[in-house]
Amino acid sequence: MIIDGLQCGHFDRNSFESLQKAGVGGVVVTCGFWEGTVESLDSLARWRDLVRENEDVCEIAATAVDVERIGRSGKVGVILGFQNSNLFEGRIRFVELFAELGVRVVQLTYNNQNELGGSCYEAEDSGLARFGKEVVREMNKAGILVDCSHVGDRTTLDAIEASQKPIAVTHANARSLFDHKRNKSDAVLKALRESGGVIGCAAYRNITGDEFCKSIEAWCGMVARTVEIAGIDSVAIGTDRSHNFTAPDYAWMRQGRWTRGIDYGAGSAARPGKAPPPDWFQTVEDMRVIPNGLRTVGFSEEEVAKITHGNWLRLYEATFKPREENKK
Amino acid sequence: MIIDGLQCGHFDRNSFESLQKAGVGGVVVTCGFWEGTVESLDSLARWRDLVRENEDVCEIAATAVDVERIGRSGKVGVILGFQNSNLFEGRIRFVELFAELGVRVVQLTYNNQNELGGSCYEAEDSGLARFGKEVVREMNKAGILVDCSHVGDRTTLDAIEASQKPIAVTHANARSLFDHKRNKSDAVLKALRESGGVIGCAAYRNITGDEFCKSIEAWCGMVARTVEIAGIDSVAIGTDRSHNFTAPDYAWMRQGRWTRGIDYGAGSAARPGKAPPPDWFQTVEDMRVIPNGLRTVGFSEEEVAKITHGNWLRLYEATFKPREENKK
Repeated sequence: MIIDGLQCGHFDRNSFESLQKAGVGGVVVTCGFWEGTVESLDSLARWRDLVRENEDVCEIAATAVDVERIGRSGKVGVILGFQNSNLFEGRIRFVELFAELGVRVVQLTYNNQNELGGSCYEAEDSGLARFGKEVVREMNKAGILVDCSHVGDRTTLDAIEASQKPIAVTHANARSLFDHKRNKSDAVLKALRESGGVIGCAAYRNITGDEFCKSIEAWCGMVARTVEIAGIDSVAIGTDRSHNFTAPDYAWMRQGRWTRGIDYGAGSAARPGKAPPPDWFQTVEDMRVIPNGLRTVGFSEEEVAKITHGNWLRLYEATFKPREENKK
Repeated sequence: MIIDGLQCGHFDRNSFESLQKAGVGGVVVTCGFWEGTVESLDSLARWRDLVRENEDVCEIAATAVDVERIGRSGKVGVILGFQNSNLFEGRIRFVELFAELGVRVVQLTYNNQNELGGSCYEAEDSGLARFGKEVVREMNKAGILVDCSHVGDRTTLDAIEASQKPIAVTHANARSLFDHKRNKSDAVLKALRESGGVIGCAAYRNITGDEFCKSIEAWCGMVARTVEIAGIDSVAIGTDRSHNFTAPDYAWMRQGRWTRGIDYGAGSAARPGKAPPPDWFQTVEDMRVIPNGLRTVGFSEEEVAKITHGNWLRLYEATFKPREENKK
């Protein structure tokens, strides 16, 4: 079974069927990039409808036990996540409400600095701000996993320090392996290792680089080198795969409403739009080659299990809001 | 005539009558601290009603010419301002809309870091962030004065650099005269001086200090020393006076919705609630002693005119959205 730490885009029935064929039993979906409270509630409500309409192939997963049960049954466990904390609109008390509505993963900030902390694309990273400290602690209590994928290194280190539970970098790579602002320093990876956190290795060409996109062996080789830095218990998969993504989606993801200008996000003027997927990852179904690829580069069965799903399950068990009936 | 660069609280008829008696012809009022878009629109709509209900004593002022005309007529010109940029909710295109609705002064951020920049109360100040640069330029175009009173020094210096028009510190003092996080470094004051910006000297005990609150002469002496640093063309008045402020207002101003804990803002555990007003400033009417106080400490008539209203009028002329009929 594979758990994917992050995917995005417009999921449809075909998305879930493709994930099933790929052996993906759990996936964190992106319910929002820039959306505020009401827009985020609307997104959650639409996700409920979508999952209900496709209940024979997917189910919303609220706990690690859910993910394992749903995935083992051959369906796709949908874990509700946000790539920004705009859903809270600055209100500390909203963290608990969104957790109760099923949200399990929230990124502190997306491509821009916000009231919580700094982003990887800003000129400077202030570190975790006052509201960020409050939100991290509140997410710990409410049962939401802290995600720092697009967050600046300094704020990420602060979040690891401030959090009473391990945190995630759901989708990024090691910067020492591919130099990109979106990737993480070895210092961050070592702090994840020491704190029980997890990084999901990305298979998005802009932040993975052509070399590691050439073949499944090349990509799994990158995973192996990431394990050398972060340790076998802190490395997992977070492909950053998008579904049915078109030009307006890239414009929303990158420019949102914060600029009238052009912003390339993880891309560049030379590659402004959709980056070609890795050579080995032309369709979502291609994810099925990952476990064998990991074996090919020398991982044992136990290690393959940790990377493909075990590490995420352990982290989810440690951080996700438990079901009410299991609480006392 | 006195123009006060910042007041806040719940204005009522008595507030306007007191300001009239004090010779205040223009005042920037605080339409919001933490309020988002809809709440800010509601606040603007309420301010319109309040001013309409008291049209014999006040009028909304949209331009420097308005302020001068209204003030000279013996009424109070109400300049609509916000102490935070939450009214835009991250949307660059909303700047223009709020300018059209009469907003003339917006602070980049209040007591916490946000998506625009750093605050004076954060441990670190990242400087002006990506969205902050966009908003400063947009405010320049739309005709809204950039206010950096609670903004961190580094972000303030960046804003002065990024802005194509001079900016304001509507209510703060020189930190070299009274050491408080809310006050501004000499570097900021010199940058204001060089760029044609203006600082409004505050008469709020927490950031003014007991010494300069003892008498009008003491406070005017502080103004004189501020002029030595920032120059006679860059110093004005921004009392930070609040109207009808009670405990829930302090809680909202300081804690807003960002923390369940206690935050003292400009106060402290030793002085958690309302700070006693300066000895010479027991009532709003007491502001009438300011012009003579400035004369007493040695300012000429021309200098008194600059400090009490001329510098603000020059800055408003340079930055406020002109009336449509005067545009071409």
